[in-house]
Amino acid sequence: MARKAGTGKGVREETLGKIGNLGTAVATAALAEHDPFVDVPMRTISNTTYSEARRLLQMGDATLRRNLFNTAQARKFMQTVLLSKGCKDLLEAQKTLSLRGMYYKSLHTIAGTNEKTFEDQEESDGILEDIEVALATLRENLHLFAKKRGTMVGNITVVDNGDTIDCRHMGTGGYAIPSICEPSVIQFGKCEAKFVLHVEKDTVWSRFNEDRFWETHNCILTEGSGQPPRGVRRLLYRLNKELGLPIICLLDCDPWGHYIYSVIKQGSINLAFESERMAIPDARYLGIRAADFERCGLSGDVKISLNDRDTERAKQIAEYPWFAKKKPWQKEIQAMLRNGFKMEVESLITKDISYVTEVYVPERLKAKDWLD
Amino acid sequence: MARKAGTGKGVREETLGKIGNLGTAVATAALAEHDPFVDVPMRTISNTTYSEARRLLQMGDATLRRNLFNTAQARKFMQTVLLSKGCKDLLEAQKTLSLRGMYYKSLHTIAGTNEKTFEDQEESDGILEDIEVALATLRENLHLFAKKRGTMVGNITVVDNGDTIDCRHMGTGGYAIPSICEPSVIQFGKCEAKFVLHVEKDTVWSRFNEDRFWETHNCILTEGSGQPPRGVRRLLYRLNKELGLPIICLLDCDPWGHYIYSVIKQGSINLAFESERMAIPDARYLGIRAADFERCGLSGDVKISLNDRDTERAKQIAEYPWFAKKKPWQKEIQAMLRNGFKMEVESLITKDISYVTEVYVPERLKAKDWLD
Repeated sequence: MARKAGTGKGVREETLGKIGNLGTAVATAALAEHDPFVDVPMRTISNTTYSEARRLLQMGDATLRRNLFNTAQARKFMQTVLLSKGCKDLLEAQKTLSLRGMYYKSLHTIAGTNEKTFEDQEESDGILEDIEVALATLRENLHLFAKKRGTMVGNITVVDNGDTIDCRHMGTGGYAIPSICEPSVIQFGKCEAKFVLHVEKDTVWSRFNEDRFWETHNCILTEGSGQPPRGVRRLLYRLNKELGLPIICLLDCDPWGHYIYSVIKQGSINLAFESERMAIPDARYLGIRAADFERCGLSGDVKISLNDRDTERAKQIAEYPWFAKKKPWQKEIQAMLRNGFKMEVESLITKDISYVTEVYVPERLKAKDWLD
Repeated sequence: MARKAGTGKGVREETLGKIGNLGTAVATAALAEHDPFVDVPMRTISNTTYSEARRLLQMGDATLRRNLFNTAQARKFMQTVLLSKGCKDLLEAQKTLSLRGMYYKSLHTIAGTNEKTFEDQEESDGILEDIEVALATLRENLHLFAKKRGTMVGNITVVDNGDTIDCRHMGTGGYAIPSICEPSVIQFGKCEAKFVLHVEKDTVWSRFNEDRFWETHNCILTEGSGQPPRGVRRLLYRLNKELGLPIICLLDCDPWGHYIYSVIKQGSINLAFESERMAIPDARYLGIRAADFERCGLSGDVKISLNDRDTERAKQIAEYPWFAKKKPWQKEIQAMLRNGFKMEVESLITKDISYVTEVYVPERLKAKDWLD
């Protein structure tokens, strides 16, 4: 065990301090014979606002008090204290754990009762999100991770837990992006790349990697296997903020593709507190565009009809504050609805296997033809 | 585009030859005014047998003839020819394509009709499996790939498409195992490892990687994110056959875990033809074992009740020919059924975060306590 895991000393001590303060407040109240409580910022849509100035989703000031001596709140109060203790153990041991692992670590039957500390992992996941916001930290700083997805290749060297990884020589497989991409774990080495091309699916990523797009266009190539997990979003954020690289997205022309872009750009509505450290307001949407059906001369075979749910989602997304005032985005979503069909990135294969890497993306990049 | 993709020259030419022969046979019949046909080995359970001698699932000799001049068969006949042509294009271009990509590549509306060549990808995937067996080849040799899953670290160097990847220095993320792991793409370099530990989930893999288990126990660490995809199975097969490394599996104690082991060991019943190049009859099942609940002193909290479907699946798996005659496996499945509950690998976290890496697996390895 040469190298300890998780966050670096500074962040770890800061996070331990925050957990300590929470514990001290609870203990002090108890010793003074007051009702112990924890204040948790509300993670509701009503407490989420979009800041035009910062171009970010932000959490408001509303909080929810959880008291120990309140039968409706006691269970959640105790779960909060229990999981805070679990995270403290992790930080002190300099280990990381999956969300499921933390559920198991904190799972027991309360002595003298038949009551389990948690009914299922969903219950503990919710409380862990509460702890994130209550401590104004991130899950990653609590040494918690989720299933990892996503891979990277390109003109950059990263240092991951002390190992130097040259993403220019990662073969057909690539570097698997970890779940925790904090600066204490991942540092950036030499980088010649001028931008990041982020694609939705790993099969499309393989096309770009096989055609060595990242080499011919001097970029970094990432994928997030659908909706990118937090690790991929945090990595893209850091590539953007720390190295100044534009993040250019190639996603399907459907509400799901638009929503992936929305989350990369502004953050997730349910988890607004993470936006400050994950949202990339400058991210760009290169395609697929509704106009591509005509523009690329695609055949009717690639059309996938929009169903009712798609139409409903498209209308919801059009009303998001960061899309509502942007005419190009309103036009884009209207054009898709008028088309009445979706298109996948793979639909370009009907032109030629490498049309997407040799014609479509290079032309759009050259013309700076993207949506903001 | 420095390096061409896909299989090496020898395999590529052999596969091209097979596709050519199929095309020639069809064309010759047509020119002689005979009814062209393609014979496709039957991929049914009735045409699948278990060879005790080879300890493998094998496909029998039964074939199905697809004629052009038969209204019930003409569509599938034409799809077979169309996709064979698609694979020929890929091999000649030295490119690879995802199954979805090949669906799009071959998708068009037949001139003068409203008939699409394929209704959906499922239809083309089925025909591609037919082509694999009809040509006695593997999908990977037709330059087709699927979504990749799974990662690797450990005491081995691999060469992937000309890039040297030192799996001893892959940080917290790891090397993403590609979908095509044929010898023409992936070669093995220096390897000190004495065995492979294959775990079911990437979150468990992270625990082993963080604790540097592969370093302290001189092994390779892989995961397949559930049921491992063909790429991971092929890689494990090659590590076993070419480097002589035992493959030791750590999976959940439930019918799903047992089935993952079954597929790694004997192959998939639906795709028996792939067994010869993917099944690992010597693979070992280390745990989780039904007896571990008592043996490890776990608390009742980790029990997950078996539902009716689990019980049914467990009984089916017990009757698989490679388990039916093995008393230890019969006992294992009976013990699980008698317990009435499943257990995940993560249940060991209730003992200690690193109990699985520091106690459970080392003790079992030392005692050679596994199922064959």
